Amino acid sequence: MHDGPASGAGRIEELIAAAARGSVRATARLITLIESGEDRAAAVSAALVGRPRRARLLGVTGPPGVGKSTLVTAFIGRYRARGARVAVLAVDPSSPFSGGALLGDRVRMGEHSTDPGVYIRSMSSRGELGGLSAATAGAADLLAAVGFDVVIVETVGVGQNEVAVLRLADTVLLVLAPGLGDGVQAAKAGILEIADVLVVNKADRDGVATTVRDLRSMIALGRSGQAGGAAWRVPVLTTIAAGSPAGGGPVGLDELVAAVDAHREHLAEHPGPQRRAVRRAQAAVEAIALRRLQESLHAPAGRDLLAAAAAQVADGTVDPHAAAARVLRMLTTGG
Amino acid sequence: MHDGPASGAGRIEELIAAAARGSVRATARLITLIESGEDRAAAVSAALVGRPRRARLLGVTGPPGVGKSTLVTAFIGRYRARGARVAVLAVDPSSPFSGGALLGDRVRMGEHSTDPGVYIRSMSSRGELGGLSAATAGAADLLAAVGFDVVIVETVGVGQNEVAVLRLADTVLLVLAPGLGDGVQAAKAGILEIADVLVVNKADRDGVATTVRDLRSMIALGRSGQAGGAAWRVPVLTTIAAGSPAGGGPVGLDELVAAVDAHREHLAEHPGPQRRAVRRAQAAVEAIALRRLQESLHAPAGRDLLAAAAAQVADGTVDPHAAAARVLRMLTTGG
Repeated sequence: MHDGPASGAGRIEELIAAAARGSVRATARLITLIESGEDRAAAVSAALVGRPRRARLLGVTGPPGVGKSTLVTAFIGRYRARGARVAVLAVDPSSPFSGGALLGDRVRMGEHSTDPGVYIRSMSSRGELGGLSAATAGAADLLAAVGFDVVIVETVGVGQNEVAVLRLADTVLLVLAPGLGDGVQAAKAGILEIADVLVVNKADRDGVATTVRDLRSMIALGRSGQAGGAAWRVPVLTTIAAGSPAGGGPVGLDELVAAVDAHREHLAEHPGPQRRAVRRAQAAVEAIALRRLQESLHAPAGRDLLAAAAAQVADGTVDPHAAAARVLRMLTTGG
Repeated sequence: MHDGPASGAGRIEELIAAAARGSVRATARLITLIESGEDRAAAVSAALVGRPRRARLLGVTGPPGVGKSTLVTAFIGRYRARGARVAVLAVDPSSPFSGGALLGDRVRMGEHSTDPGVYIRSMSSRGELGGLSAATAGAADLLAAVGFDVVIVETVGVGQNEVAVLRLADTVLLVLAPGLGDGVQAAKAGILEIADVLVVNKADRDGVATTVRDLRSMIALGRSGQAGGAAWRVPVLTTIAAGSPAGGGPVGLDELVAAVDAHREHLAEHPGPQRRAVRRAQAAVEAIALRRLQESLHAPAGRDLLAAAAAQVADGTVDPHAAAARVLRMLTTGG
């Protein structure tokens, strides 16, 4: 354990108690601990064992520019109107080019910025593959354990990086725009397979009908062998979240929120062969295992092992696979 | 080992011999084996132990749209003119949005497509974090071992995903365009730190001078504590790879190729405290270790361990970090 005085078990208990009383500062501090490495994340996690979690986890993804932020803002408004406390984790697992496509800072300054029932946090990759999923899993679990009713995990993209993050959610909402071909990419990456609700936003643009029809056929093809108990029919909705250019208000938001609610009810009634909580735990344990390994490789003992192995590989005396197997074995048993 | 008859040791020896005689088909088949999983990649790697590698590895990266493909095509032309055999691995580690930004298929149909001294291959992520770096390391090593003189690893983006791939290269070339702010992103992600040559392409656009000046100050700031032996002064060049719109030919390509050559000579004269071959081996061993772990987690034994751990975590009886540590230990010692 690398615990300093600022992250010892007693201090963590205090922070959790404060976060449960609604302290934004304590919540932020705990998430920073979770992000800062496996040892501290493990200490926070251990202190949360046994606390009830009633939160629903909603995952929202889609390519940049489709209006995810507007939709997430709409969800926050609806859930707040019901009295729910809402947290948003804005996660960007892909390259920095998508920067700014996430809700993060925009809403922080927007209509919900002064609402104590709303907590918004950006999670950014610190260069460790797997580290972001592990930290997001930890942060989502913390938010659930300190009393948030809804945790929205927003991620940008329709690639494989997103799948790991979205597997944490109870309900996955995929947001697309008409005619971009992103549906095909989402299908390839496996996102279509885990999406529970699809929405084509900016439905005042050309090509909506075609996009909706294409998505419906892709779903029909992909879902035939789907596990998960009684069949959930994945709806494909259309919205104009920002209102129509002709001056009309937003279109389709009530129906979208209703579809997400319906999925939640479906889950409650049909828990299926594998509960979502187990699926979520599995995604978390896998992400944490990878992060632990990466941290071990970068810690002094791991560096030494790697350097020794690399020297042999560079000399041509050992092949890199044998070297990697040996490093793995020594790291996980030696420490 | 999952070796079928098509990938047994004898068959691999045959393929390697054929690839060394210049068979494109055998080379492609071997890279497919390397991509298809750790066991097969390890079998290919083991069969390559002891073969000399004289290839130089050039890494090229930069955001989409800056003209990487044109520059890589120019490099291929110059190296071919010297009689070198050139291989290109086009790697896309980020989300599928950047699809099409890489050389891959474009050149395959272009001027070098019928040249037997040029081999071009796209490497795409198969959903496994770390898997792409491991497969790229294996493919680059194979190409070096079967007699290519130059292996160009082209990757798209300036994010952290690219760093893992670029660490395999002897010389890293970062390509930017004027005034995009991508230099700052590259610096944040750590690419600026590992870049050996910088080029601002599309130098007929506004803002070139500012971009070059900004990059020079960023380099000056970041390089002060740089390891690597006698100081290499990272040059910032400008090119108009596609020729100027006024009808002029390409500008600055000779100087760019000369700068990359100069870096190679510098490496030969100043191997530094850590040889590039060792750095490369270290990157490869690390990527392979992560890939091995991921594959173990998805193999039947790993799945069972994960499922059992997830059930306990979902019940709230075990925290996910303790569960992950246990899974790691059992996987690396049990198998």
